[in-house]
Amino acid sequence: MSKYVRYLSGAGISYGILDGDAVHEIRGGLFGPRAPTGVVLKLSEVTLLHPCQPGKILAVGLNYGSHLGSRPRPAHPEIFYKPVTALQDPDGPIVIPGGATDVHYEGELVVVIGKQAKSVSEEKAREAIFGVTCGNDVSERAWQQGDLQWWRAKGSDTFAPLGPAIAAGLDYGDLLLETRVNGETVQKQRTADLIFSCAQIVSWISNWVTLMPGDAIYTGTPGATRRLSPGDVVEVEIEGIGVLRNPVTAG
Amino acid sequence: MSKYVRYLSGAGISYGILDGDAVHEIRGGLFGPRAPTGVVLKLSEVTLLHPCQPGKILAVGLNYGSHLGSRPRPAHPEIFYKPVTALQDPDGPIVIPGGATDVHYEGELVVVIGKQAKSVSEEKAREAIFGVTCGNDVSERAWQQGDLQWWRAKGSDTFAPLGPAIAAGLDYGDLLLETRVNGETVQKQRTADLIFSCAQIVSWISNWVTLMPGDAIYTGTPGATRRLSPGDVVEVEIEGIGVLRNPVTAG
Repeated sequence: MSKYVRYLSGAGISYGILDGDAVHEIRGGLFGPRAPTGVVLKLSEVTLLHPCQPGKILAVGLNYGSHLGSRPRPAHPEIFYKPVTALQDPDGPIVIPGGATDVHYEGELVVVIGKQAKSVSEEKAREAIFGVTCGNDVSERAWQQGDLQWWRAKGSDTFAPLGPAIAAGLDYGDLLLETRVNGETVQKQRTADLIFSCAQIVSWISNWVTLMPGDAIYTGTPGATRRLSPGDVVEVEIEGIGVLRNPVTAG
Repeated sequence: MSKYVRYLSGAGISYGILDGDAVHEIRGGLFGPRAPTGVVLKLSEVTLLHPCQPGKILAVGLNYGSHLGSRPRPAHPEIFYKPVTALQDPDGPIVIPGGATDVHYEGELVVVIGKQAKSVSEEKAREAIFGVTCGNDVSERAWQQGDLQWWRAKGSDTFAPLGPAIAAGLDYGDLLLETRVNGETVQKQRTADLIFSCAQIVSWISNWVTLMPGDAIYTGTPGATRRLSPGDVVEVEIEGIGVLRNPVTAG
């Protein structure tokens, strides 16, 4: 299992492999031939960035039974988009935008695509998955109810925190996902409880929308969510991946 | 007024300025300093591509009174996303995907952003607009009704034809927009009839979602639409811009 990170250092923006507190720089990006450059930095010397640069971001609604409430179990994955401008780095602020009244966290397992995928089977979908990371599908509930589509409810700037690392070679079928607000656990569920598995989601999407290396898919949130306020700190932790921490600020 | 194109020739992919039947190659892309390279090709010697490479694509629903039917006039622009993998070139096929039963054309004026725009006024929004082009917001009506969000209804591969050229310096406030299927006119309206103007749309979006150079915004379709079938040819023509022509094929 390898953990891939993207980071800023004195030398600019690089990709690397995280090994404990050491970041081993690599050349060639994540999805082609990779090789270590020999440069090794301490984690404390770099600023982690969202770990890849997706060409597009997709997300799944209603994918844990515990999040459905009174809504029926979906017959197939229900997909929506988040824009790439919503991406936020680990430790970057979730900014509550103008007019927002009810911004919620949604801790999620995120799939990162490694190979182009068009109309792939579940088996081929598994091969197209590069790895997994943590995401927060930040959502404004009033806009989610009131707008025709979820463009700003799910897509406002900073509403897509992603990271800290992409775990490749990790079995992501049964990992503990936990979200904390100011240290208090507010979501806790295993990824084995996903209604549609990562491979099923990738296969479904690929019937209509070609997935490309770097594309990110937020796989849905468990349980209930609550309103965030400026000053809060949200952490999404997934077993074997790490902790995605973001403070909340006023816009 | 200049018309910018992106095209494939023996030398690879280039940007150029279209002047009658001549394509004058430029270096530097569309949004930075541009200079002619001195290379001039005939239009018939190149293959036109979608004229920019958006980082994201947005679209407006319900933006002509003639398209509302029994729906109320919206209080503000209603926005949604199309994924970048849905882009299609001029003359490239609109592919009816598996499971689709009711795919419609939607001829539209498309705004191309030239400058980063965050929380901009309408006046600043006008300055952020690089130019306009033609688009077809291809839509599958059954999925638009039945899915939670419009991800495949509006986002399936080839559902975002764009081009043939970006007209910069053209007054886009009152242009004739006409859609034809197999030569028959099926939509005809002036852009003066947009409920929300291009500048109002850009300003509204920018309150929440930062717009970047190259981002494309489909501004909504007028009148009624009809089902497309394999073998059809759809043309979206806008006065002063050109004709975006795409054949329809079975998936």
